[in-house]
Amino acid sequence: MIRLTIWYENVQEKGILDKNIFQESFPEEEEKKFAGFLAKTAEEMKKVYPDGLGKTLEDHFKAKEDISVKLVTLDMPGCGITDELLENTDVLMWWSHIAQHAVPDELAEKIHQRVLQGMGLIVLHSGHLCKPLKLLLGTSCTLRWREGDFERVWTTAPTHPIAQGIPPMFELETEEMYGEFFDIPKPDDVIFTGWFRGGEVFRSGCTWTRGYGKIFYFQPGHETNPTYHNEYILKILDNAVHWTAPDRIHDKPDCIHAEAPEIRK
Amino acid sequence: MIRLTIWYENVQEKGILDKNIFQESFPEEEEKKFAGFLAKTAEEMKKVYPDGLGKTLEDHFKAKEDISVKLVTLDMPGCGITDELLENTDVLMWWSHIAQHAVPDELAEKIHQRVLQGMGLIVLHSGHLCKPLKLLLGTSCTLRWREGDFERVWTTAPTHPIAQGIPPMFELETEEMYGEFFDIPKPDDVIFTGWFRGGEVFRSGCTWTRGYGKIFYFQPGHETNPTYHNEYILKILDNAVHWTAPDRIHDKPDCIHAEAPEIRK
Amino acid sequence: MIRLTIWYENVQEKGILDKNIFQESFPEEEEKKFAGFLAKTAEEMKKVYPDGLGKTLEDHFKAKEDISVKLVTLDMPGCGITDELLENTDVLMWWSHIAQHAVPDELAEKIHQRVLQGMGLIVLHSGHLCKPLKLLLGTSCTLRWREGDFERVWTTAPTHPIAQGIPPMFELETEEMYGEFFDIPKPDDVIFTGWFRGGEVFRSGCTWTRGYGKIFYFQPGHETNPTYHNEYILKILDNAVHWTAPDRIHDKPDCIHAEAPEIRK
Amino acid sequence: MIRLTIWYENVQEKGILDKNIFQESFPEEEEKKFAGFLAKTAEEMKKVYPDGLGKTLEDHFKAKEDISVKLVTLDMPGCGITDELLENTDVLMWWSHIAQHAVPDELAEKIHQRVLQGMGLIVLHSGHLCKPLKLLLGTSCTLRWREGDFERVWTTAPTHPIAQGIPPMFELETEEMYGEFFDIPKPDDVIFTGWFRGGEVFRSGCTWTRGYGKIFYFQPGHETNPTYHNEYILKILDNAVHWTAPDRIHDKPDCIHAEAPEIRK
Repeated sequence: MIRLTIWYENVQEKGILDKNIFQESFPEEEEKKFAGFLAKTAEEMKKVYPDGLGKTLEDHFKAKEDISVKLVTLDMPGCGITDELLENTDVLMWWSHIAQHAVPDELAEKIHQRVLQGMGLIVLHSGHLCKPLKLLLGTSCTLRWREGDFERVWTTAPTHPIAQGIPPMFELETEEMYGEFFDIPKPDDVIFTGWFRGGEVFRSGCTWTRGYGKIFYFQPGHETNPTYHNEYILKILDNAVHWTAPDRIHDKPDCIHAEAPEIRK
Repeated sequence: MIRLTIWYENVQEKGILDKNIFQESFPEEEEKKFAGFLAKTAEEMKKVYPDGLGKTLEDHFKAKEDISVKLVTLDMPGCGITDELLENTDVLMWWSHIAQHAVPDELAEKIHQRVLQGMGLIVLHSGHLCKPLKLLLGTSCTLRWREGDFERVWTTAPTHPIAQGIPPMFELETEEMYGEFFDIPKPDDVIFTGWFRGGEVFRSGCTWTRGYGKIFYFQPGHETNPTYHNEYILKILDNAVHWTAPDRIHDKPDCIHAEAPEIRK
Repeated sequence: MIRLTIWYENVQEKGILDKNIFQESFPEEEEKKFAGFLAKTAEEMKKVYPDGLGKTLEDHFKAKEDISVKLVTLDMPGCGITDELLENTDVLMWWSHIAQHAVPDELAEKIHQRVLQGMGLIVLHSGHLCKPLKLLLGTSCTLRWREGDFERVWTTAPTHPIAQGIPPMFELETEEMYGEFFDIPKPDDVIFTGWFRGGEVFRSGCTWTRGYGKIFYFQPGHETNPTYHNEYILKILDNAVHWTAPDRIHDKPDCIHAEAPEIRK
Repeated sequence: MIRLTIWYENVQEKGILDKNIFQESFPEEEEKKFAGFLAKTAEEMKKVYPDGLGKTLEDHFKAKEDISVKLVTLDMPGCGITDELLENTDVLMWWSHIAQHAVPDELAEKIHQRVLQGMGLIVLHSGHLCKPLKLLLGTSCTLRWREGDFERVWTTAPTHPIAQGIPPMFELETEEMYGEFFDIPKPDDVIFTGWFRGGEVFRSGCTWTRGYGKIFYFQPGHETNPTYHNEYILKILDNAVHWTAPDRIHDKPDCIHAEAPEIRK
């Protein structure tokens, strides 16, 4: 049984400008505009995810026999991630966007360390800028972007376990364009490469190993597009949960003073 | 002309327990022991590096026509690295050991960002635990260790520019053993692999690219061993300075909103 | 001085069905069609490369002070590559297409071995199926294709020496689409990634090291498109010649019986 | 059920100089010496593998519920590998040494192609020079060697499925030294690194993907050492069989002419 925790930002879906999250004071005009954007996004999201984006993911994994899933959100105490939960998570799936800053540095560092000990990490879409991933990868994780494009997802490492059951190419009618140059360390594998009608390419599905932990980043999943209803997207996420799940959690790595062994002469 | 800055910790060589650096209060007995260790190390270092370890490196590069070198140390104002110096550095060579903690997080982060923009970074020996490298690599960088071993350095990527002029194998009479498992991200190239008499192996010379910057980590260089007098070690450092030197410094990477281009139909 | 040899197939440009090259007997109808295709291609090529594709490349490199260039073609004795020439070549640039089969296995094997000893190899466009590359890579090197598309070339490894002076993206008005899945071993670096109007992506600029030799494959360069007049394409080829050029040619690798050394106890 | 075929050379174990295998005519003196070497090897092998090296491997896998195993040898018709067997093999495990030349090029090429279609390949010890591996890797696969050393095997990619259940280090009392430089393409993962008392290091456990097939090379396994009785060695082979086993066999890769798709405007 793989213990999957889904961390979902859950900010846009509420459609309100929560002062606990956006603590900076905006100029009045800008604040109005931002509040309007949030309200509009919430409305659009309701159309594609009537039960919520987070719950859509949760429900999908609830139906799996070998996975137990728990959904937590930013607005929960401790951002939803207690030490106990972290210690009982095999794979952490992460969707965040406009409130990356609201995750405390201390929590991000705890997650970072837990991945080094073996916890799997799956980062979705706009989570490319989330603190835990940036701590693990060490680069800016910046990219080009544009909403409302059309994407073709090409399988560029067809033998990888995450690509099993996925055709050589599938299409997403509407998805946010993420384009190169994507400032990431060279991935272990670039499993999927995105093509966008507007003229860009992107390393859309990438893996890395850090410490004892496996990481998968996957680009599709814009909040107002029905991406998490797509059968291939869901199959990829299933595969990723199994691939990132660790055999075991390791002790915190430390420098070890090694006595010289007796070597047979 | 490559502008090389050598950052040297310069703590053990002074042989005194500087309370500005070791601010924690030790139990009296332990403090005495630590002070004794420092005094003894300083004495040993004087034998192998009469002019100092940092100055030995500086002098070596001073003799190079295409390199201008500046040596800075932890005990200088701002730890020796002002913003101006950082902006005028092409390659930063880093030797640190017992005072990794004394480099402020803010400075480490500045160096981290500068590497992402293109500045080369060469980390020597015990610098494997220095803050800038850990920020760039995202792992614990821990390893096994034992002083006073005998090392053979094998060239395992002979076509890499850093290996030019280096034989298939060379020996270091006395060097600190660093052994696997070395908790680092998969290197782009493992140029040198160390063999230690005591029974360990180590990925001794590794490269990574992060953002626009090139990084080289090199294991030999224990403070009381005459490693930086060895011709092959110095040749490898020469090669590394040239290899990590950037063509140019890039703007800070940022997410770019890209208008859909007009694609020829 | 880098000694560059350009091997150019030179079959389509002549526009005739040479029975020395196409020795199989075609059904009469098919032969007529094929001869017609060759004649038409020759006519089109004359428009974009009035001096010939091979000579266009040769002339470009003739103007370089640090490169000495020699153009050879399939129709020369020994396919243009004598043992002596091979021994005096630092970098071999290879353009082939419809006559891959006409290069004798023995010659392909000689080139293969010479790359393992250090000779650089640059394979252009339809050369992806040439015998020497397939011997070096060990895969089928197959791909999708379609003529007459529009391509955007994205730089996906901007710090690589071959990418120096190349913008984040440049366009080719008309180029043959080569698309994934490209059956190649994982490249050391994917320096360029192609986007095609028709909906495909491609690892367009890839490097590998085999033995002591460096290899660069570059996708653009369809014979009836003016690709080799494009300033960025030529700059990439310049960079590639310098990057693949070896420091020296190594002895043929062999298994060495190693006496146990005397290790300091 | 994974269908495992073990190909075992079975030449030294017989202890006779078979003229069908060694067809070249030796000078009389040399032939005598070689025959003596074979007889002596056979005798030594009987001590460590009373049932034969091949059968020892076969028996080990026979006990596994999810693996069906078939042992074939060079002296069988068609070298033991018929087209039918190849089509019914998921993973081919290969042990060869002094008769690499006796495997016909045509058979080696068939195996090469089958791996590209997805069949797993595990090459043991002296098989590093076998024809199928050299066709897949494209390099000389040469190395240093010396019999009768003591080896420590270090796990350098502990999260890889092939390393599951293997400690950070284990020892082999007597094993043939294989040392760097090992002329292979950069592996996807270097899972094990060997340390030899005599002073060498070696990338002892390496993986590559070629086409749709996964490859594992593993250094320990000299014929006169009891390596295949070691529990960790056997565990690694178990893991490797599972890791290299394909989900499915793919069609032979071919170049596909792709019609331009209708992309949503």
